[in-house]
Amino acid sequence: MPALDDRCPFCPGNERMLPSIIMETPGQGQGNVDWQVRVVPNKFPALTPGVDQARLKEGIYLSMPGYGRHEVIIESPFHNRDLVIMSREEVETLVEVYHRRYVKLMREKQNMMVVIFRNHGPRAGTSLVHPHSQLIATGLVPGHVRLREREAERYFDETGRCVYCDILEFEGLDRRRVILENRSFLAFVPYAAEVPFEIWIVPRKHRAGFGAVPGDEKIDLAHALQEILAKLHARLDDPDYNYVINSWARYKADEPHLHWYLQVRPRLTTTAGFEIATGIRINPSLPEQDADYLKGR
Amino acid sequence: MPALDDRCPFCPGNERMLPSIIMETPGQGQGNVDWQVRVVPNKFPALTPGVDQARLKEGIYLSMPGYGRHEVIIESPFHNRDLVIMSREEVETLVEVYHRRYVKLMREKQNMMVVIFRNHGPRAGTSLVHPHSQLIATGLVPGHVRLREREAERYFDETGRCVYCDILEFEGLDRRRVILENRSFLAFVPYAAEVPFEIWIVPRKHRAGFGAVPGDEKIDLAHALQEILAKLHARLDDPDYNYVINSWARYKADEPHLHWYLQVRPRLTTTAGFEIATGIRINPSLPEQDADYLKGR
Repeated sequence: MPALDDRCPFCPGNERMLPSIIMETPGQGQGNVDWQVRVVPNKFPALTPGVDQARLKEGIYLSMPGYGRHEVIIESPFHNRDLVIMSREEVETLVEVYHRRYVKLMREKQNMMVVIFRNHGPRAGTSLVHPHSQLIATGLVPGHVRLREREAERYFDETGRCVYCDILEFEGLDRRRVILENRSFLAFVPYAAEVPFEIWIVPRKHRAGFGAVPGDEKIDLAHALQEILAKLHARLDDPDYNYVINSWARYKADEPHLHWYLQVRPRLTTTAGFEIATGIRINPSLPEQDADYLKGR
Repeated sequence: MPALDDRCPFCPGNERMLPSIIMETPGQGQGNVDWQVRVVPNKFPALTPGVDQARLKEGIYLSMPGYGRHEVIIESPFHNRDLVIMSREEVETLVEVYHRRYVKLMREKQNMMVVIFRNHGPRAGTSLVHPHSQLIATGLVPGHVRLREREAERYFDETGRCVYCDILEFEGLDRRRVILENRSFLAFVPYAAEVPFEIWIVPRKHRAGFGAVPGDEKIDLAHALQEILAKLHARLDDPDYNYVINSWARYKADEPHLHWYLQVRPRLTTTAGFEIATGIRINPSLPEQDADYLKGR
């Protein structure tokens, strides 16, 4: 793959293909390009600002205009510089940009939630190969997120503890599913992983929201994330994957039962009819074996 | 594609590749084969009988052995005889077999739910092209199903009506999303369709469970289903799809707020990071336009 592609809207020199530029970080001096990470509006946004957030009634139904923001985080000027081959500093800068956009957009009261995610490969829904992440701010709290909140709250009400802190403690002692750890994070295959080689990167420090994460933890996240992606790349031959930062909705920033984390989902299997009907995922893989395999055992 | 394939375990003559035969319906006199629909155990089952249904505790986690049944419903002896080109009588027989297996397996007390589904094409999770459906009986009620039950119950408690009956009434009057109807069924693109060209085939008569459906309604279901699949085939060039029969769990068979239906999900789009984080599906298509397009307008 070339380092620059004439037809790629994310490559330097093709800025005319971009709607605008929201922000940039300074370049690392490579290839005479004066930026490293560049944030732009998505040209084909799933949600758009400037529309109302009021719910509309139509007979028995409720709807809402597609209010929101949809941004693309271009991770490098270079078309072929995927996250696994970046320098550590470049990944640190990327995580810093995630955090800056997250904080900035959560300051706008109309944004109820900010989701940062990366789709890698066609099975994960990517249409452009140039390394990039995305960010969507929504004007409502998704039901799926409310459901997870309520389950975490129920656990807290019963036990007085954060369920994610308890998972961290259990996995840290059990160790069979742990893949790596550093000062601030534990990365493991979850006990009931929904897909083969699913990985959660969970901060040791209890914090509901990604917005409150301090500088050293951002650096540790960058390193853990790159190491995990490098293991997937090496052991599974560059699989398609998604990752998402699961933080929480507005007005939920200090809850003792909510705990942000980063979730990686390789796309090696296909959901089918059973999953549609039941919501249960058939995972043909064992979490303990997946963890061993990723550790190179 | 040939009518028979030497290497296909579902083709007549290759019975040695099957674990066993659970049931068959008589042949239609074509090609000297004495069966039309044949039900066999899945050779690679997601769930298996003969294991315990007790929940196990492991630290903070709960698990359960993979109790269940997983059957394959071979729809025709012929490798290339897809549902859309079958005779009406053949599809009627297939629906009759769905119903017979559903009723039979729901009589076994350890089965909490029976899910019938069809995966068509690789994007829908099919590995074998020979026309077939599947059936999975589970030993627990999936959380996703409980969630839909509770939402339907809440609606009933508030309004005194079945939400599916209200949807039927609204769609029947509104008509913009209706694709076809017959004596017993209304087929339409749901108001908030999660994927392009999603279709629900909903019985006009309120019945919680698929098991209670009488003979004439089964015939009408066979005709509606084949017509819908023929429209998808013709207008979208034989798209990959899943369909599932959404019936309800054991002990819920007579509830006034539950209403079985058949759901068709074409697989034209890919879920990505946003869907994983939020549970919200980005559907780039408008239900009313999808319905018009399928009707050939």
